[in-house]
Amino acid sequence: MNESDLPVTDFHPYRWGDPARRTTLPAAATETLAAFGVKAPAEEPVDLAELTLPEPGFDLAPITGVVGAGQLRTDAATRIGHTRGWSTPDLLRLRAGDLTDAPDAVAYPGSHDEVVALLACCERLGVAVVPYSGGTSVVGGLAPDRAGFAGVLALDLGRLDAVLAVDTVSRTATLQAGLRGSEAERLLREQGLTLGHFPQSYEGASIGGYAAARSAGQSSAGYGRFDEMVVALELATPRGTVSMGTAPKSAAGPDLRQLVLGSEGTLGVITSVTVRVRPLPAERVFEGWQFDSFEAGAAALRRLAQDGPLPTVLRLSDEAETSINLADPAAMFAGGPGGCLAVTGYEGSAAEVAARRAAASEVLAAAGGQPLGEEPGESWRHGRFKAPYLRDPLLDAGVLIETLETVTFWSKLSELRAAVTTALTDALTAQGTPPLVLCHISHVYETGASLYFSVACAQTEDPVAQWQQAKAAANRAIRATGAAITHHHGVGTDHRAGYAEEVGPLAIEALRAVKRVLDPAGILNPGVLFESGSSEGDH
Amino acid sequence: MNESDLPVTDFHPYRWGDPARRTTLPAAATETLAAFGVKAPAEEPVDLAELTLPEPGFDLAPITGVVGAGQLRTDAATRIGHTRGWSTPDLLRLRAGDLTDAPDAVAYPGSHDEVVALLACCERLGVAVVPYSGGTSVVGGLAPDRAGFAGVLALDLGRLDAVLAVDTVSRTATLQAGLRGSEAERLLREQGLTLGHFPQSYEGASIGGYAAARSAGQSSAGYGRFDEMVVALELATPRGTVSMGTAPKSAAGPDLRQLVLGSEGTLGVITSVTVRVRPLPAERVFEGWQFDSFEAGAAALRRLAQDGPLPTVLRLSDEAETSINLADPAAMFAGGPGGCLAVTGYEGSAAEVAARRAAASEVLAAAGGQPLGEEPGESWRHGRFKAPYLRDPLLDAGVLIETLETVTFWSKLSELRAAVTTALTDALTAQGTPPLVLCHISHVYETGASLYFSVACAQTEDPVAQWQQAKAAANRAIRATGAAITHHHGVGTDHRAGYAEEVGPLAIEALRAVKRVLDPAGILNPGVLFESGSSEGDH
Repeated sequence: MNESDLPVTDFHPYRWGDPARRTTLPAAATETLAAFGVKAPAEEPVDLAELTLPEPGFDLAPITGVVGAGQLRTDAATRIGHTRGWSTPDLLRLRAGDLTDAPDAVAYPGSHDEVVALLACCERLGVAVVPYSGGTSVVGGLAPDRAGFAGVLALDLGRLDAVLAVDTVSRTATLQAGLRGSEAERLLREQGLTLGHFPQSYEGASIGGYAAARSAGQSSAGYGRFDEMVVALELATPRGTVSMGTAPKSAAGPDLRQLVLGSEGTLGVITSVTVRVRPLPAERVFEGWQFDSFEAGAAALRRLAQDGPLPTVLRLSDEAETSINLADPAAMFAGGPGGCLAVTGYEGSAAEVAARRAAASEVLAAAGGQPLGEEPGESWRHGRFKAPYLRDPLLDAGVLIETLETVTFWSKLSELRAAVTTALTDALTAQGTPPLVLCHISHVYETGASLYFSVACAQTEDPVAQWQQAKAAANRAIRATGAAITHHHGVGTDHRAGYAEEVGPLAIEALRAVKRVLDPAGILNPGVLFESGSSEGDH
Repeated sequence: MNESDLPVTDFHPYRWGDPARRTTLPAAATETLAAFGVKAPAEEPVDLAELTLPEPGFDLAPITGVVGAGQLRTDAATRIGHTRGWSTPDLLRLRAGDLTDAPDAVAYPGSHDEVVALLACCERLGVAVVPYSGGTSVVGGLAPDRAGFAGVLALDLGRLDAVLAVDTVSRTATLQAGLRGSEAERLLREQGLTLGHFPQSYEGASIGGYAAARSAGQSSAGYGRFDEMVVALELATPRGTVSMGTAPKSAAGPDLRQLVLGSEGTLGVITSVTVRVRPLPAERVFEGWQFDSFEAGAAALRRLAQDGPLPTVLRLSDEAETSINLADPAAMFAGGPGGCLAVTGYEGSAAEVAARRAAASEVLAAAGGQPLGEEPGESWRHGRFKAPYLRDPLLDAGVLIETLETVTFWSKLSELRAAVTTALTDALTAQGTPPLVLCHISHVYETGASLYFSVACAQTEDPVAQWQQAKAAANRAIRATGAAITHHHGVGTDHRAGYAEEVGPLAIEALRAVKRVLDPAGILNPGVLFESGSSEGDH
């Protein structure tokens, strides 16, 4: 990419994804929504082109001195395009014209060294920095606290989009942080390789974001979580560069890679990662299984997770989600197969897929599963990146729709599902908007599994506050059962309180101490992961 | 265990393991050794019973106030039994009567809360604390730097030896830190479960040590490393308790468990861990394969590690190690099968073992392996805990024998093996004692593998200094190829300099910052992992 060819995000600031793939609601959905009392909002979303922003509150010259004048933008469209992420409250705020979190300027560094220099420069200027690559955070990870700073600089890593190295013997690839997941996959495919990482944000999210937020993709059963793929990384900090990862695993002290993975831009800016890659699978088969109940299906998934063989993709929808068929807009609300739908996917060589599929199918059948053939599996596979496109027409129609996720040990899974479902239902019903709450398992481990909830109800007049109440109730339920506050969305600002409660004050103090070493002025994503205010006073 | 029934270590302070299993050298070995110029040392090892130690340099009353008078010992035998670990230099120093690292006293806390109280007490007294459970460190992890402290208290966790909980649904067990690995395995076996963790120190090492030093066992291909088994842990610090692990995996911030695992007692005392357990395997098969060269064998292991199926145990000895048959004292130096011996082991259900063995055997044969049948595999399995027993008669005979290990990516493995072998050979030859250098791969990953070296040569008059020179040369070679300074032995004090070089000054500063939060007075294992002196001045 040459310098004049700046990366342009194809994403509309409050409408998901490729404009050509935007969708409308099917008729069946509109009818169902009416029964929930859904009415179109009183106000249309604002036209962002009509909004203006104040001039940047700090001297830009030192920044252009680092990146060059062509690589710094302060126009409103660019700044609005870098405002917050993709949670429903983020979109609702932008629809309402709330630009309070817009960065003052957006810089596009072209190298790791420019990132290091930019951070030193922002430290001198007293400017907060939000590392920005895919921009797909759904937990407020891109809305730093600007209190005490001269302004906020969004550091767009889009120009750091190269595959730096491929080691075919060790099966690793070194990828720059600004590379979108989909583009990384395309470039690796040219060499017969795959990362195998497919989160729902795959079309937009970046390698750096995957790493900073401990992403988990839909094929995590087969390919692992992103934090399990990373063998090395480069971190740019205001105090210089930290390189981590001399070997796959070692006993050379704590695994400090795992301290950076999940640090969400607060300890430094990850500029590249070296990840384990695999050969492109020769064969891919997806299929559906039906279980009488969520508990029966969960028990079957647990058997596969604990005794194997593990499919590459393994998911289970509860009765409500199964009946709605969320993944397929065309079929949504048109009625599902009944019971609970499990999706299994197998990738690998033809012989390996055949053997694994046969053995897993035996386990699923023995656990009470009814095979539904390949159609439901392929339908899920083709529809899996479509769900985010549904949110925009649903919001337009006056639906409040959002998701949240958590993870626990197998023995607590039923209790967790019941507690969160009840909390969401009660909190929204109390506001006069009884919700539909859907749940699925999308990631399994030997000792536990994740739960992913989708919630839909009629919007009240203040849908942001409406959701915040429901979300707070869900968080309390999650914490009360001892589960983790997030499985793969991350902490951001939305989960900060729950996270602090989960890890306790000494752990937060330890993280702050690490931040003080790497980022003494606290300019990096302040307020994300933990509160920024008291970092000076706690020691 | 009642209070009067203190745990007694069966290990002689400088002779390995169960006295009933001690061994002598076979005749073939004695002949070979003579050819290397080995002569019995001029001095016999000291009789430890004749040594005395100075009185403890601090007030013991506050400590007995916490644990009770019966749980504090200051007699010489107990203190000598808690002096240093099991590296060859450790044994040589003890043989020479060097007790400079002996703790002033040994306390036996009976609960997590007592550990917390002891740490607070030692902080007030200005006493350094060395957490001690198995006592099997081979990297100086039990020899804290006492400079600036009133003395050293060894905190023997032997009374914390319970299985606190077993969750058969989630397949986890909560084990106290002082439980020896072998005893944990025995207790789990009663419930039909196994940890599957078998490091060579298995007879003596403890659960807490496995966790604190990121242990890897001989079945790591099948059961994973110990740090991969831990889902939760309790850490006692001078500032209180930190509990970690609410789920198998999450995106709730950095994985802080991985900051404690490998912290080697410097950030707190791990008092219990919750680990993933598995059902006892119904079937176990071990077998041998012969490869023409180490490179051919390594390529075969790489294929299994990358494309599967992975055996439970997977090892490859180089030509020298194969010829010596180190694992079997009876056969040692009696000549091996020639070429390079690989050992494969399979554990699981009968059907699963049969399928995995057949598929892996096909891969090994296609990669040029010749099947040697079950005898070499079973011979390795039965002999695998015997090698440490050989060291004592070898030291008695005047042999300097020691091991070291490292890990790198597959593409650098040959270079690493050559560099370390050359470094050890040159450094010892230059001292007039040309060595035998043996090497094997014992742990494989998709992206790389470990290398384990055994070195033997005639002792000089100062064998500790002799080894230090060789070890320093090996460390330089490891660092020059970019490999990790240790794969599973840990950092301790022996690898401190190489570790600092490997992770760089900012990472060390970050670790020190975490230590200052959890251990403000720096009493916990000072000098282990990183130098203790400058911790106040670096911020």
